[in-house]
Amino acid sequence: MTDQLERLNRLPLRENLRGLQPYGAPQLDVPILLNVNENTHGVPEDVRQAIVRAVEQTVAGLNRYPDREFTTLREQLAGYLGHGLTAANIWAANGSNEVLQHILLAFGGPGRTALGFPPTYSMYPLLAGATGTGYESGSRAGTFDLTPESAAEQVAATGANIVFLCSPNNPTGTALSLDVVTEVYEAGSAAQAIIIVDEAYAEFAHRGTPSALALLPGRERLIVSRTMSKAFALAGARVGYLAAAPEVADALRLVRLPYHLSALTQATAVAALTHSARLLENVDEIKRQRDRIVAGLTEMGLPVAPSDSNFVLFGGIEEPRTVWQGLLDAGVLIRDVGIPHHLRVTAGTEAETTIFLEILRSLIRPNLS
Amino acid sequence: MTDQLERLNRLPLRENLRGLQPYGAPQLDVPILLNVNENTHGVPEDVRQAIVRAVEQTVAGLNRYPDREFTTLREQLAGYLGHGLTAANIWAANGSNEVLQHILLAFGGPGRTALGFPPTYSMYPLLAGATGTGYESGSRAGTFDLTPESAAEQVAATGANIVFLCSPNNPTGTALSLDVVTEVYEAGSAAQAIIIVDEAYAEFAHRGTPSALALLPGRERLIVSRTMSKAFALAGARVGYLAAAPEVADALRLVRLPYHLSALTQATAVAALTHSARLLENVDEIKRQRDRIVAGLTEMGLPVAPSDSNFVLFGGIEEPRTVWQGLLDAGVLIRDVGIPHHLRVTAGTEAETTIFLEILRSLIRPNLS
Repeated sequence: MTDQLERLNRLPLRENLRGLQPYGAPQLDVPILLNVNENTHGVPEDVRQAIVRAVEQTVAGLNRYPDREFTTLREQLAGYLGHGLTAANIWAANGSNEVLQHILLAFGGPGRTALGFPPTYSMYPLLAGATGTGYESGSRAGTFDLTPESAAEQVAATGANIVFLCSPNNPTGTALSLDVVTEVYEAGSAAQAIIIVDEAYAEFAHRGTPSALALLPGRERLIVSRTMSKAFALAGARVGYLAAAPEVADALRLVRLPYHLSALTQATAVAALTHSARLLENVDEIKRQRDRIVAGLTEMGLPVAPSDSNFVLFGGIEEPRTVWQGLLDAGVLIRDVGIPHHLRVTAGTEAETTIFLEILRSLIRPNLS
Repeated sequence: MTDQLERLNRLPLRENLRGLQPYGAPQLDVPILLNVNENTHGVPEDVRQAIVRAVEQTVAGLNRYPDREFTTLREQLAGYLGHGLTAANIWAANGSNEVLQHILLAFGGPGRTALGFPPTYSMYPLLAGATGTGYESGSRAGTFDLTPESAAEQVAATGANIVFLCSPNNPTGTALSLDVVTEVYEAGSAAQAIIIVDEAYAEFAHRGTPSALALLPGRERLIVSRTMSKAFALAGARVGYLAAAPEVADALRLVRLPYHLSALTQATAVAALTHSARLLENVDEIKRQRDRIVAGLTEMGLPVAPSDSNFVLFGGIEEPRTVWQGLLDAGVLIRDVGIPHHLRVTAGTEAETTIFLEILRSLIRPNLS
């Protein structure tokens, strides 16, 4: 390993990559996986069959390059999102990481800066770094809140070219009010900042939580990104997408790799979208389990961030590493996101959630007594 | 359109993207498609069935993120390539464009320069530009030849950090001798240059044409890139890969997006690799059609570059645009690659090749008389 690292260091790596480790949560073989906010309820049988049928129809033409414009997929995504959007407003890529990479390649780069508000999605600084974009970390209140005034002030003060607003935020789980988005958009006017609202977990928000999609008309620098990895249970298929002004999609056409979305990906996503109602039934059940976790943790006396996602961040853990390991020893993998005294857990099935709560209760009792 | 372009120009695009058009050959609906070097012989029925079965087994787990290390796929690719390679030598991505992008993200960037030898694959400068890497165009002899001496001299003179050698070269079709690779590797020592031999079309080379894979031992800056889009007839599945020293793969782990290869892509590629013998039978047939094209064009008196690929570049065309349009009007789409008096055609099925040759003969007779 040291030998391999030494050989790596002899290669002419970009300076900003030297000493880095590859990103990624451990992929462990454990009975209950509640660590990377996957949809634990799986792809329903009828949707699986629809996907296999779609692939069956696609495979005969696999020798041909796919539709570079993924037209049918864009139409379906626009229809799913509503808000008067059409295919011209939509862009998609292999996971929302690639969507964000496209945005940084088009609007970031050397001499430009992106701003995020940690704790937030840990890929933002890595994506910025890989595209030569500077990255600044803004600040939140101690309770992880972000007020419109504070966010706008920081956007103006940094002169950021790209702003990441994650709502519901990962890893805290809390949705932003739309006031944050509108104030940040205004504050970014001077620098012509691109404002990204990352709504990867939007479908899990409490009823009545508005989406930034409603703010798109008249705001050509606003981008709302989404994913099929969570509510649509398709993390393995890698489909992220966004909605924005048509000219934003045009800009991304300049940096996307030709034929970046495979015919299999397009067919799979379209098949799933035609079954969105079926998939969203599972979302309701996941929200119930999420609320059970919040109630259970609160009952244990642990402080819990309000969650509009399929996961819950909780505090009050004296030694997160010990509790994390105790859960793992009992067959439950959750995530230590590196916030002192906190851990993050994904909402599982009813049975998985019950086991998680029981084991955690047995582990933290010594801390609470 | 002008209105849309105006709106695009009001966005804060990176300076080097201003005024660019998206890359891509026209995707037209025409009976005979011989324009983008696809495998015109398609995916054989038994391989199609194997792919569908593999997807069927994968779809139940699509709610989970895919194996980030695509271990089985790397093992299968190493086994296919031979030359004593193992999974540690292999990297893969969504098409070889993404493989090349990973290389540029790891080893290129601002202040570094890539060197290519046009006419060659037109994505090289675009990939360089999108990653902030400088790009220099080297020169070839008038007949598109590239000698070891000339190539090495240009590599040394430019001090390039990354060198693209395309063999067989696209769009000329001709394979390089390994002397070019070894001399260029030596000439790049001072600048610690990464040397990429792009062997996308290697399987179509004449018997006895050696692969740069044989040169990998002891050359940790040498990378041989390949694709499943051509010989494996999987352009629609988007699978490119490379073989290199294990530390090169480690470097690319620093810039790849997490889970960049979907579970569907991995399953499809593995299924196809278990049927590689069946797929390579079609390669033999394609090579026969390629040789028929070379013979037919030569008979028409047109100068033809020697081809080790599934396509042929030919000259002697006074007005390429007119001939291209004449073929299109007759239902045959080929490629005008922008070289004066030249056109490029992909080897089709026997019937497609016959039709192409007949129509071309009728179109160029006026020019020859």
